[in-house]
Amino acid sequence: MTAQQMRTPTPEGVVRAAAKIADLLPNTPLIEAAVNGRAVWFKAECLQPIGAFKIRGAWHRLSDLSPEEQARGVVGVSSGNHAQGVAWAARRLGIAATIVMPVDAPKVKLEATRALGANVVLYDRPGGEDRDEVAARLVEQSGATLVHAFADPWVIEGQGSAGIEIAAQLAARGLPGPSRIVCPCGGAGLTAGLALACPDAKIVPVEPEGWDDVRLSLEAGHIVGVPDPSVPTACDSLQTPATKPINFAVLRNRVSRVLVASPAEIRAAQRWAFANLHLVVEPGGAAGLAAVLAGKIEPDGQTVVVLSGGNTDAEAFAKVLTTQD
Amino acid sequence: MTAQQMRTPTPEGVVRAAAKIADLLPNTPLIEAAVNGRAVWFKAECLQPIGAFKIRGAWHRLSDLSPEEQARGVVGVSSGNHAQGVAWAARRLGIAATIVMPVDAPKVKLEATRALGANVVLYDRPGGEDRDEVAARLVEQSGATLVHAFADPWVIEGQGSAGIEIAAQLAARGLPGPSRIVCPCGGAGLTAGLALACPDAKIVPVEPEGWDDVRLSLEAGHIVGVPDPSVPTACDSLQTPATKPINFAVLRNRVSRVLVASPAEIRAAQRWAFANLHLVVEPGGAAGLAAVLAGKIEPDGQTVVVLSGGNTDAEAFAKVLTTQD
Repeated sequence: MTAQQMRTPTPEGVVRAAAKIADLLPNTPLIEAAVNGRAVWFKAECLQPIGAFKIRGAWHRLSDLSPEEQARGVVGVSSGNHAQGVAWAARRLGIAATIVMPVDAPKVKLEATRALGANVVLYDRPGGEDRDEVAARLVEQSGATLVHAFADPWVIEGQGSAGIEIAAQLAARGLPGPSRIVCPCGGAGLTAGLALACPDAKIVPVEPEGWDDVRLSLEAGHIVGVPDPSVPTACDSLQTPATKPINFAVLRNRVSRVLVASPAEIRAAQRWAFANLHLVVEPGGAAGLAAVLAGKIEPDGQTVVVLSGGNTDAEAFAKVLTTQD
Repeated sequence: MTAQQMRTPTPEGVVRAAAKIADLLPNTPLIEAAVNGRAVWFKAECLQPIGAFKIRGAWHRLSDLSPEEQARGVVGVSSGNHAQGVAWAARRLGIAATIVMPVDAPKVKLEATRALGANVVLYDRPGGEDRDEVAARLVEQSGATLVHAFADPWVIEGQGSAGIEIAAQLAARGLPGPSRIVCPCGGAGLTAGLALACPDAKIVPVEPEGWDDVRLSLEAGHIVGVPDPSVPTACDSLQTPATKPINFAVLRNRVSRVLVASPAEIRAAQRWAFANLHLVVEPGGAAGLAAVLAGKIEPDGQTVVVLSGGNTDAEAFAKVLTTQD
């Protein structure tokens, strides 16, 4: 990791990222809908051009690279959404992108990343191959810049731009700001970014069952990995074995409560978003909504739920829609 | 029909409707996406609170009723989206609403209409019962105001407010305006409204196979019903046996070309919107997109496609997602 990547992400950086992203992309809508008779605000990041918030951090990172760095290309590591974010930003900026993706990533994510012009290198996630080692080798060979999916100050600041938009969108509706932002949590790039963006809001990350390393880490007071990284989950986008120090440093001061959503709760959330919002939300993208629907958090009229992504295979989504649980 | 209902819808009325609706509802997003490498703009009306554009016309109509009229209630006739629009507006204004719906309407639409507090009266569409007669009896009994799903000047003006939003949203992106608006067409309330809203745009309605009465009417120069109203279609929201004079009067001066989408083209459009936009679009709502994807109209960078609704049963949508055609 270079010295430059070691800098601390800042609220000012989030504001700067938000301005850069506002020049490039329209705000995703903040949609109001009632949950058990109470108003909840949904930040529809599944409506981003790549179907997920990851476009934010990737754009902030890649557009801040020097011309020399841009010429050497970038390497990303991702199950799919960060992959598409990096590929999208790289294509727009004319940068060569190589993405390290798990062999068991959803087909739609592999195809979409390739369609955006990125070179995809597969690694054996089910077999336990270390994706960071694969990426490090590629960086060493090419001199490319590693764009980490969450442990990068630009990436954190970029994801936080969603929080700047949320605050402005609530203000436009006459509300003082988000009281709480409930967000899906994998490596905690989005969670850390939102914490920097919205200092007055409670940030409530939600992890899938078996992948609650952020919850365990905050309880322990230091970073702890998931107990068993072979536990299956439909939430491929939240399947991170452990968070990293740059993220944990933000979270330990700002997050007091981490929630966990079960597979059935996540499926119910996907069905609810289908029927009530007419949005396609992938399993990982629905974790925050799952916790709210399950009554783990009580909406107060200024509660915002981030629907972080919508990239899911048609067959998998059809199965969720027709499942009774 | 009262004298008041017989007035002609006007461009000024559309502008007034748009201002009323802007006070009530956020603009639905206008989303850019590439179709065969060309930019197309999608007006996501499936993201309205009731999941369809019909909330626009219903609001404009009901909020313009006098206190005496409001006290006597309203009667609507609809397969589901207009039903929900009228029920939503009526609840907001404290007006009693009775909706005449076909027994074979999608379950989600029946349930959603009842959940909004409306009294639902079923009629036998498959058996050929005339819904307008059922509604006329209810109006006679109660003195309520009939809110027709498309043959009503307020309803037409209200639906046209989508066109005012489209023009403003394109202007905000530096574009002069829509060159063409491709929209699903049932009774032609939306089509007529868009024609009034956007005088410089070509309006291209798209009907489902077997339900192309507007196409036949414009060819004949007078209103013609569908040849066989027993032809099945998944597009319940476009299943209108014939348009009405108030709509036809607008269309005959403004519409030169009506397209027809096949069932397979509509399913392909629903799958495309799922995968590329992460939106749930019902069969009728996808008719415009179906025509574009099928190459029946060539996008020119200022082509707008209205995705008019997203209310579809989970099982039906799952079946579309897993169909290969």
